Amino acid sequence: MSTQQSAQTEPNANAGFAPGWYIVAASKDVGARPKPFMLNGLPIVTFRDSNGQSVSLLDRCAHRNAPLSAGRVIGGNIQCHYHGWEFDGAGACKTVPGLCGEPDHPARRVPSFACRDSQGWVWVYSEPDVDPESEPYDIPCADQPGYLTIREHLEMPGPLDAVAENALDVPHTAFVHAGLFRKNADRKPIEVVIRALDGGVEAQFIGEERPKGLVGRLLAPQGGEVFHWDRFLLPCIAQVEYRLSDRSHIITTAALTPRTPTVTDIFATVAVKVPVPNAILRGIFKPVAMRILRQDIEILRRQTEQVKRFGGEEFASTEIDVLGLRIKKLLREASRGKASTAQEERRIKMLV
Amino acid sequence: MSTQQSAQTEPNANAGFAPGWYIVAASKDVGARPKPFMLNGLPIVTFRDSNGQSVSLLDRCAHRNAPLSAGRVIGGNIQCHYHGWEFDGAGACKTVPGLCGEPDHPARRVPSFACRDSQGWVWVYSEPDVDPESEPYDIPCADQPGYLTIREHLEMPGPLDAVAENALDVPHTAFVHAGLFRKNADRKPIEVVIRALDGGVEAQFIGEERPKGLVGRLLAPQGGEVFHWDRFLLPCIAQVEYRLSDRSHIITTAALTPRTPTVTDIFATVAVKVPVPNAILRGIFKPVAMRILRQDIEILRRQTEQVKRFGGEEFASTEIDVLGLRIKKLLREASRGKASTAQEERRIKMLV
Amino acid sequence: MSTQQSAQTEPNANAGFAPGWYIVAASKDVGARPKPFMLNGLPIVTFRDSNGQSVSLLDRCAHRNAPLSAGRVIGGNIQCHYHGWEFDGAGACKTVPGLCGEPDHPARRVPSFACRDSQGWVWVYSEPDVDPESEPYDIPCADQPGYLTIREHLEMPGPLDAVAENALDVPHTAFVHAGLFRKNADRKPIEVVIRALDGGVEAQFIGEERPKGLVGRLLAPQGGEVFHWDRFLLPCIAQVEYRLSDRSHIITTAALTPRTPTVTDIFATVAVKVPVPNAILRGIFKPVAMRILRQDIEILRRQTEQVKRFGGEEFASTEIDVLGLRIKKLLREASRGKASTAQEERRIKMLV
Repeated sequence: MSTQQSAQTEPNANAGFAPGWYIVAASKDVGARPKPFMLNGLPIVTFRDSNGQSVSLLDRCAHRNAPLSAGRVIGGNIQCHYHGWEFDGAGACKTVPGLCGEPDHPARRVPSFACRDSQGWVWVYSEPDVDPESEPYDIPCADQPGYLTIREHLEMPGPLDAVAENALDVPHTAFVHAGLFRKNADRKPIEVVIRALDGGVEAQFIGEERPKGLVGRLLAPQGGEVFHWDRFLLPCIAQVEYRLSDRSHIITTAALTPRTPTVTDIFATVAVKVPVPNAILRGIFKPVAMRILRQDIEILRRQTEQVKRFGGEEFASTEIDVLGLRIKKLLREASRGKASTAQEERRIKMLV
Repeated sequence: MSTQQSAQTEPNANAGFAPGWYIVAASKDVGARPKPFMLNGLPIVTFRDSNGQSVSLLDRCAHRNAPLSAGRVIGGNIQCHYHGWEFDGAGACKTVPGLCGEPDHPARRVPSFACRDSQGWVWVYSEPDVDPESEPYDIPCADQPGYLTIREHLEMPGPLDAVAENALDVPHTAFVHAGLFRKNADRKPIEVVIRALDGGVEAQFIGEERPKGLVGRLLAPQGGEVFHWDRFLLPCIAQVEYRLSDRSHIITTAALTPRTPTVTDIFATVAVKVPVPNAILRGIFKPVAMRILRQDIEILRRQTEQVKRFGGEEFASTEIDVLGLRIKKLLREASRGKASTAQEERRIKMLV
Repeated sequence: MSTQQSAQTEPNANAGFAPGWYIVAASKDVGARPKPFMLNGLPIVTFRDSNGQSVSLLDRCAHRNAPLSAGRVIGGNIQCHYHGWEFDGAGACKTVPGLCGEPDHPARRVPSFACRDSQGWVWVYSEPDVDPESEPYDIPCADQPGYLTIREHLEMPGPLDAVAENALDVPHTAFVHAGLFRKNADRKPIEVVIRALDGGVEAQFIGEERPKGLVGRLLAPQGGEVFHWDRFLLPCIAQVEYRLSDRSHIITTAALTPRTPTVTDIFATVAVKVPVPNAILRGIFKPVAMRILRQDIEILRRQTEQVKRFGGEEFASTEIDVLGLRIKKLLREASRGKASTAQEERRIKMLV
């Protein structure tokens, strides 16, 4: 349908897929059996080679296209269930049962993906048959002394940019998570500084009070000054960091993996240092986090469904949508192979 | 597939969507909570403003496209569940929580639809941001003295034109509703006069006997002469009227609302004046009507499924298909903004 | 995605649909009620005319496109459930209830398909309104003296060419059916002769040992020399023949009917002459056959799903894929109306 304001809203734009390292599984979940997953619509299988290294291949046998993940790992090679062809971690064909000649042949190769075990996660580089110049993102504070580190995997409805914006968005918390973070009452103005990072963007919130509600009381029982940053880093990191005095520090790093254009996996690492015993923290964390995530899943599901019904997005933004448009732009540029151009720092006021 | 008779049958033609007033809900069902519906594939939300007037907006928040119907009504405005943006009944943005400046802005408007409560139904004009020149259709005899008035809402499989033809078609009743209306036996010829109406078409059946079976015995216990008209009026009215002497009059007005290209809502108003006590009439009406409708739903479901399998319609007609082709033509012309051209009166013979 | 080996693998090619005779039902299943089925995406209905002959029409009433199969057979004609139109076995319209004039008219014809009862099956010729020059395939040994004949119907996931290759493929048996036919161990080289047939292709296996495992012990309790042929015959026959001395002969003829591009019906006729009592054979046959078929269904389902995910096939083959590529070529040529060009005989070695 045509509407009067079309010209003034953002065009219906798919944010695009940025090449790079993505988490595809917890390291502990890649063991003796092949583990399939979907990265940006592409079926990929991960297994461990004879050295115990995690390796990743396109999940399609070169022969008759059966999924390799339905087979098994034999001596560090993956064996297809259909005709028993075997491939090593680099994708070379090592066995064609019944064939008298040499099995290895360029036409029988399966594309392979660079693969790393790092900080409890298996990371895969999104482009096949490439030796990447970079290494996976280093998650701050994970497993560092004094920090309780919690890892969770969750499937979210929605494209990566919508999930990232949702994860880093302050204004929705007073509505979707009413009573947990903030309330839509007694708002006070604070300052937000938005600054470009190398391949990313950061919003710093200055003058914020201790978060209201349950989460705030957990983070800073005694109150005090709050430092709060929300960050997005290409290709897939959404990070929320809170410091409340020297005693409390919580940094949540969500690695977002697009499974399909409308489903995104979240692999979250939460590193927490607070003056609360770990046992209590563990007991409280999971139910609170799950309540928040269920609320976000519900609104993302509705948003995604409505965008699909209308055949695309038609978003209007205000200056308090501090990161959403910038995330889309970073993804769009990266998907076209353009480096992000640094921006001037921007300051705005927001009522929280 | 190609078949020999293709050239002689009607082409595969979508009947099109005619702009105008459509029923979207019973008035009593639009209360304190927003009510969503789908008009021709477009999600629309209806709620009551601070004056208790029903109002309708596109069911998509201007901000991040969440469905407004998932939110709630506060002081006559609808509040989005995601970030709390509020819109009045005209679609103007009245609140952006957290924003320091003025919320109202052309880019933040939501398209609105003219909306009326009339005769127990909520009617919506199909074109957004338009002040329509016409008012909703006036349903004859509804709630008039001496008439029992019954309202029903039902979802039918099939496009509007197929549902309208089915509702107004005489020949199928001997098969789909065998034993309820007519039988495929002892047929006698009657005359049918087909005449153009202003934006519509009418078939009058002359010389018809009292309908056979249960329905006939209800309508005219003593028999007598029967007057019977079937009518279609743009954009959505299918009407069946029976008069049997001065004592019996039944007029069923079905307002058809296309939900999607293959699902049509029927909002039916049945006004009945018969020499049967209302309590008995009410007791009999519902089970008989539901039996008829279930039979029509079944055949429409099968027809729609088969048309979909073949990738479109390929209909052959005879002269006793008195209204079907004309309904398609009226809809097709109206969807292209053309007024219907009046036709000569046509008379045919039919065996009923 | 682009991969390095694309140029050396077969292109993503739909094998195409070859016109001809296809089985659509067991003869015993076409009785008093119309029987619907799907041939290459086309809904067809089969019923018996007043002579008890099986006849087939397009399953779409010429009038309003309702499925004729939802109606009933009256005096050898099929009656549509919607308005009672009746059609004879040749598709001519014999009755339009309510119409004063002649019902038969070219525009009211329903396309008809040549239809035969042969060897326990109903065969339909795939092209409408054609008097075919050929007759259905004559299944060898079916119901011949000394042969136990078993018929089964099964739905398989996958296109016809994938199902045919699977049915005729030797190398997969050591993996998908491990322990039933062959093992992936103690392999010995044998010779395979691949020769063109008239409208088909055959692979003969020379020097093969008695099949290992349960199936082998059933076929040839005393061992002995093995003769084994796998054949494909246009448009739809996949045949496996084993001879083990004069006393044992098993010939399985699978007629493959493409229902949709990814679902294929198998109508199998198994004719068996072995030195085992029929009662024992019947008792063993069904559970063993069903176990094999369930394993094939599972791998075909996975293959089909993966090909769909990738938007097409990308197969690499070796010389021991003796029939797959040739089957695709035969189907592709036949679908374009080209006759198959005869090939030189080819001999290869295979380890079985």
